[in-house]
Amino acid sequence: MRYFARPLSRLMSQLAKLPGIGPKTAQRLTFYIMGGSLESARELANAIIEAREKIRYCSVCCNYTEEDPCPICQAPERDRSLLCVVENPRDILAMEKTGEFKGIYHVLHGSISPIDGIGPDNLRIKELLERLKKDNFQEIIVATDPNVEGEATALYLARIIKPLGIRISRIAHGLPVGGDLEYADEVTLGKALQGRKEL
Amino acid sequence: MRYFARPLSRLMSQLAKLPGIGPKTAQRLTFYIMGGSLESARELANAIIEAREKIRYCSVCCNYTEEDPCPICQAPERDRSLLCVVENPRDILAMEKTGEFKGIYHVLHGSISPIDGIGPDNLRIKELLERLKKDNFQEIIVATDPNVEGEATALYLARIIKPLGIRISRIAHGLPVGGDLEYADEVTLGKALQGRKEL
Repeated sequence: MRYFARPLSRLMSQLAKLPGIGPKTAQRLTFYIMGGSLESARELANAIIEAREKIRYCSVCCNYTEEDPCPICQAPERDRSLLCVVENPRDILAMEKTGEFKGIYHVLHGSISPIDGIGPDNLRIKELLERLKKDNFQEIIVATDPNVEGEATALYLARIIKPLGIRISRIAHGLPVGGDLEYADEVTLGKALQGRKEL
Repeated sequence: MRYFARPLSRLMSQLAKLPGIGPKTAQRLTFYIMGGSLESARELANAIIEAREKIRYCSVCCNYTEEDPCPICQAPERDRSLLCVVENPRDILAMEKTGEFKGIYHVLHGSISPIDGIGPDNLRIKELLERLKKDNFQEIIVATDPNVEGEATALYLARIIKPLGIRISRIAHGLPVGGDLEYADEVTLGKALQGRKEL
């Protein structure tokens, strides 16, 4: 005996494919959707299809966008001599929220990770090099994640960009603001020491 | 400046409406869907619409079903003299998994909760009473949740069903199997004492 009608178990297994959603959560979400209106179920389904169909890569920076080039690449007030390289579109959100960066972006869509079989050719590095040749950048800021893969990617980029004579920098490692010195891990604290600035 | 293209932020806000999914998780799920194939996004969207459109209430037991009456109500091997009353379709799954119950079900779709403005009229109690008049039941097993609302619902059902001369029972309270006596709360342990059985 099947416990659930086929459309219900189908929805559960579809939801359980999403990251961080196990069978129990998928079941709870399914019953929540069933308990809601037909209208709101349609809105959710349409949002999924619309996002997946309408969003593509910006032909300039490779960020997700509806219009090409993306709004940031089009914005006249952005500093076109400053390029920030990030791993994912999410990282652009984090950068924009700081309000500190007025340049433009390049999204690699990943980081170098030999264990996962991801090399430079799987990332948008070719597109980055083409931009560097075509446009005139003062500085490239590498804002990949502060982990092994992000560091490897930053080192790789430094090796291929430095010969082009463009200044390349890496965002600073150190203690998070509001953090507690005694709880900092030794690697972060070590980096914070190395990166100390004169007051 | 919008941080995300409209279709992306629309999908995020749609996902964030689901229970237990906050803005961060909605963002993560959105980027996961964007990173997947168009085909799998369509499959997810279709599963949502199909479930919401094809599933309705069984006209007999009020469980979610694709065919009416539902497979359990139709199954010839089920004991039609034994009726188990549950709050939600999910509870039927829990009951079926025990393999102990061979009767049929009635789903109330909620429990009496004056704080939430849910009274007997908001539940499928009228439908239950009609079944009790029409069919010949030996026993009604009330398997509502062991919490305040579930108990209130059970007491209410007992009050209206007893006058009909039908036996009505409540599933037992006690210690969960595999549990630890010293960690049991006092209410559960008290109920377990009251419900003790001769060995």
